[in-house]
Amino acid sequence: MAVTSTYPDVMDKLVSLCKRRGFIFQSSEVYGGTGSVWDYGPLGVELKKNLKDRWWHAMVRARSDIEGLDAAILMHPRVWEASGHVSGFVDPLVDCRNCKKRFRADDPRIKGTPGTADAQCPACGMKGTLSEPRQFNLMFKTFMGPVEDTASVVYLRPETAQGIFVNFLNVQQSTRQKVPFGIAQIGKAFRNEITPGNFIFRTREFEQMEMQFFVDPESDHMAWFEFWKGHRMDWHRSLGLAPDRLQFHQHDPSELAHYARAAFDIQFDFGGGLGFQEIEGVHHRSDFDLSRHQEFSGKRLEYFDQPANRRYIPFVIETSVGADRTFLALLVNGYREETVPGEEEGRAVLGLHPSLAPIKAGVFPLVKKDGMPEFAERLANELRASFTVFYDESGAIGRRYRRQDEIGTPFCVTVDGQSTADNTVTVRDRDTLLQERIPASAVANFIRERVHP
Amino acid sequence: MAVTSTYPDVMDKLVSLCKRRGFIFQSSEVYGGTGSVWDYGPLGVELKKNLKDRWWHAMVRARSDIEGLDAAILMHPRVWEASGHVSGFVDPLVDCRNCKKRFRADDPRIKGTPGTADAQCPACGMKGTLSEPRQFNLMFKTFMGPVEDTASVVYLRPETAQGIFVNFLNVQQSTRQKVPFGIAQIGKAFRNEITPGNFIFRTREFEQMEMQFFVDPESDHMAWFEFWKGHRMDWHRSLGLAPDRLQFHQHDPSELAHYARAAFDIQFDFGGGLGFQEIEGVHHRSDFDLSRHQEFSGKRLEYFDQPANRRYIPFVIETSVGADRTFLALLVNGYREETVPGEEEGRAVLGLHPSLAPIKAGVFPLVKKDGMPEFAERLANELRASFTVFYDESGAIGRRYRRQDEIGTPFCVTVDGQSTADNTVTVRDRDTLLQERIPASAVANFIRERVHP
Repeated sequence: MAVTSTYPDVMDKLVSLCKRRGFIFQSSEVYGGTGSVWDYGPLGVELKKNLKDRWWHAMVRARSDIEGLDAAILMHPRVWEASGHVSGFVDPLVDCRNCKKRFRADDPRIKGTPGTADAQCPACGMKGTLSEPRQFNLMFKTFMGPVEDTASVVYLRPETAQGIFVNFLNVQQSTRQKVPFGIAQIGKAFRNEITPGNFIFRTREFEQMEMQFFVDPESDHMAWFEFWKGHRMDWHRSLGLAPDRLQFHQHDPSELAHYARAAFDIQFDFGGGLGFQEIEGVHHRSDFDLSRHQEFSGKRLEYFDQPANRRYIPFVIETSVGADRTFLALLVNGYREETVPGEEEGRAVLGLHPSLAPIKAGVFPLVKKDGMPEFAERLANELRASFTVFYDESGAIGRRYRRQDEIGTPFCVTVDGQSTADNTVTVRDRDTLLQERIPASAVANFIRERVHP
Repeated sequence: MAVTSTYPDVMDKLVSLCKRRGFIFQSSEVYGGTGSVWDYGPLGVELKKNLKDRWWHAMVRARSDIEGLDAAILMHPRVWEASGHVSGFVDPLVDCRNCKKRFRADDPRIKGTPGTADAQCPACGMKGTLSEPRQFNLMFKTFMGPVEDTASVVYLRPETAQGIFVNFLNVQQSTRQKVPFGIAQIGKAFRNEITPGNFIFRTREFEQMEMQFFVDPESDHMAWFEFWKGHRMDWHRSLGLAPDRLQFHQHDPSELAHYARAAFDIQFDFGGGLGFQEIEGVHHRSDFDLSRHQEFSGKRLEYFDQPANRRYIPFVIETSVGADRTFLALLVNGYREETVPGEEEGRAVLGLHPSLAPIKAGVFPLVKKDGMPEFAERLANELRASFTVFYDESGAIGRRYRRQDEIGTPFCVTVDGQSTADNTVTVRDRDTLLQERIPASAVANFIRERVHP
């Protein structure tokens, strides 16, 4: 569903910036790449870690009513029968009997109805060679143990949520939590997508940040749904995503899963032809998942409410963020090109919140003499105990500033002739371009106060 | 290779503690478990995150000569031809033609020589039914794209190292690093082990923390090898692992890979029958990996030394830690049972370094009245902005202390009758059992100073 945005398309520029500066590389690039799989480079891994740490802090450590979990990627295959993925997580595909290529049945390039004499293959152009649509499961399948047969099939999880559901009672009982409470997890998931794309927007290997909140079905569960909707939107805003680029999209009855009571996506406007796209889902899943696992495992997954002497299967409110998509949203949201007063060359800036920036400070000697490099390196090493720091002494100072602007470094600390005399340095702000002179000994606190979310 | 230790075997106690308190659960337990795959519960995920964060800080953020990376699990299949895993990462297996079971060829229960009439199946007891050994590859295999054929086979990576090698030039060029420098990565890897076991010691899904350090082959590369050996041993000691439970094990020529110049394991004494086992490998891999990828990809992977105007393939010194094994070592190392002076019941303690402890502080009202719960909850909420905190008001105070001791919480803060009068609280030290009275407003700094590595 192509939608257009009033924001420009900066994707090509970002793909190039990401490779050149080390945010994201194509997986196995020297071998021609792996289809829609990406590697996070030195700056990318820091930005992603900062993003995940902010989510983990907000959703787990700062709350007394949410517990963390890290369930494995490989799970028992019955999990995916219970969840409905074995039967329902499918895309219809058609084959060409002539050229052996495969397509999604809804591929707009297909002329005519697949399975009939009219249908024309979009690859080889033959008529009447396309099969009727067949269901293709999107889970990656592998075999555990030495024998490759149906009894040893396991899947790479297509979502992290089920690891939370099957551990519901283990977590509840070991932590003595009482409903309402939540379980949160960050981890990889895999989908054998037929039409992945848009850089890291839709990939075959991706990372989710999910939280399942368990509530009493006889309580005001819709109030919890509304609470989490608002809370999650606030969180995205707290990352610095522009409020006018964020919106809710309500699933209408045709989009809604049969068990879902309500579902909203949080969408971000990626600009260009991509426009508003989902970065998080806030879904009311009723008691579907726990009931199914109780049925398929034959194990009770009820919660026992001791004061009320009542057993029940809780309702679940799910908040599910795509870490890679939010990463991409941060780049798209932050990227800008602008002119600089009094300078001929413009600059590209990545306006990342200081808490998320991969490098917190660049540290430069103004020139490579008079003890400035030694002073600056010593300061850089001190700061490195607490922050990611980049020391740079090569090239003109303006060029060094530009290199940091482009990767989102919020502060540049410059050691100049005055520094060696009075132990002060200048700190330049990425966005305002203002420079402040402060004691070198105050730099760590200066940064610490500003990188805090 | 069974070795015995002077330390007692505490594994069974730990498995039970881990499940009961939420460190580790069996994967998909309600479905009977997934073979040798484990989930990290609320306390386990915190301990593991703290461990990984300490490694990341020591190996990446605190150093100017190491860059981080997060390469994908799915890679191009040629990677594993170049690395030697397709042909060489194999275990010999034998089949029983009668009962269809499979065994490692070196299974000590097999009587006689497999493939001959003498050989007796350890499962069904039949004679002469065991096949000759066949090579079984330990990589998990899956298919990318809609067609399941040999052209679409991809593997779950059996180690993270290759993601670093194939990105060597991408990282070097985007960061402008000069040899010697390193690339570090934390991530999941998968091995379809035939005989996994010992809880989380050998599992099919595990996490590695690897660093590859690239050095000039014409420099004193063995000095770098010695440097990293010492540095890595120091790091394990800094986690609190007892020095007498740590040792180096040098690979003798028969253990050494053909391309390796030298290899030492860092072993930890797990006690009981397990004894000293590898938790990290420090290996000199020569130029094997980069040369192979250059050969197989047809792309130059040489480093250009600009000042010397010289191109070469660097040597690699690898440090590779098993995150799950080190996690287990921390539990084994920290667990102790002891009597408490003046008390009848003893206590179990997990002596974790405060920087690693999943919960930094328990916060308790002495009794549930006179404003103590409100005071304590307010304090707990304030502390939660900076630390993981557990608020507990249920049961006798002694019992609440014991519950925190057992999970390694270094500090317990108690609000008593005096607190509401003069805003002081007591802080109890897990190891010394000493209690100190300090202002409530000083608790955050008290903890902060002590949880720093």
